[in-house]
Amino acid sequence: MILYSMIDSGNCYKPRLLMGKLGLAFTTVEVSSHTGDTRKADFVAKNPNAMVPLLELDDGRRIAESNAILLYLAEGTRFLPADRYERALAYQWLFFEQYSHEPYIAVRKALLTFPERAADATPERLAVTLERGNKALGVMNRHLEINAFFAGGSFSVADIALYAYTHTAEQGGFQLDAYPAVAAWLKRVEADPGHVPIGWVG
Amino acid sequence: MILYSMIDSGNCYKPRLLMGKLGLAFTTVEVSSHTGDTRKADFVAKNPNAMVPLLELDDGRRIAESNAILLYLAEGTRFLPADRYERALAYQWLFFEQYSHEPYIAVRKALLTFPERAADATPERLAVTLERGNKALGVMNRHLEINAFFAGGSFSVADIALYAYTHTAEQGGFQLDAYPAVAAWLKRVEADPGHVPIGWVG
Repeated sequence: MILYSMIDSGNCYKPRLLMGKLGLAFTTVEVSSHTGDTRKADFVAKNPNAMVPLLELDDGRRIAESNAILLYLAEGTRFLPADRYERALAYQWLFFEQYSHEPYIAVRKALLTFPERAADATPERLAVTLERGNKALGVMNRHLEINAFFAGGSFSVADIALYAYTHTAEQGGFQLDAYPAVAAWLKRVEADPGHVPIGWVG
Repeated sequence: MILYSMIDSGNCYKPRLLMGKLGLAFTTVEVSSHTGDTRKADFVAKNPNAMVPLLELDDGRRIAESNAILLYLAEGTRFLPADRYERALAYQWLFFEQYSHEPYIAVRKALLTFPERAADATPERLAVTLERGNKALGVMNRHLEINAFFAGGSFSVADIALYAYTHTAEQGGFQLDAYPAVAAWLKRVEADPGHVPIGWVG
């Protein structure tokens, strides 16, 4: 398998973290939005939505969207709950991550740290992403006060997806010590067997 | 089952459309963001993320996120592909819908038609949502020029999710005649057995 991926993207870290845990062999090809490479014709021919990560299977078929790649790879493993309701909770938190978390927590970090995004870092944009990112962290903290993990009682793809940008949220100006249940969960995620850091590329 | 739902929300239409096709019995409870009811304490106790739709099962357990509800209800039916790769494509398009489509196509309609959103309808916001919504429609059109449906060869939850806001996109100022493959697909979706319109509540 080939993973088209950007080294400092949390979305791209998600499949790397899961493939590391599963011991799957894959080749990483760096395609960076910083340099505009995700928008070049040869990559857009592979993913018309012009985004990484993109997983290419050995037969050439491709899957886009980080959380779809997680669900594909996790099927039949301990990372996707076997119980139908718990699996629905995994889906729920994966969509929460892409709709209510990543657009604020990941984007605020990008606005503050990616030179090509500096012009977008208006006071209004920084205020909205701060408020909504804190709302997402509050929802997570409330859940984690009474649950060890997101979907059912054990570690799943939902934890991988939410870990990817939560563990670097302080680079976006979020204060994780205000969310003690989230901070404790980050340590549980890192203690799950086979953990690899964001810079690991297989 | 109880569906907490808002009558004019495409996200809430998704589970209603699928439950209609499946012939499932359910009760609709209207909880509107227009009136602030999604943010009131009794509803936030049910969904801490303060959003509809929310599905409550007969045993009281709940599932949030429209596309997670679709995946839960579709399991074992013709609406979720049996093939692993085609199922991954369904996931891919569900995440595309929530990340690259709904935040522009649904939101632009809300900015233009919901009185409580009028103050947010700045020229910049309208320009960004127009550009990115058109990008999403272009990605869809390109796919539909060579595929009848989104995931594999037949109608699935991916078509339900993308139909929900695409079929009202002109209310957000998008010109669907510029996307003929999308316009033809809308008709195919409406021809799938058991179709119900957005105002149907079970």
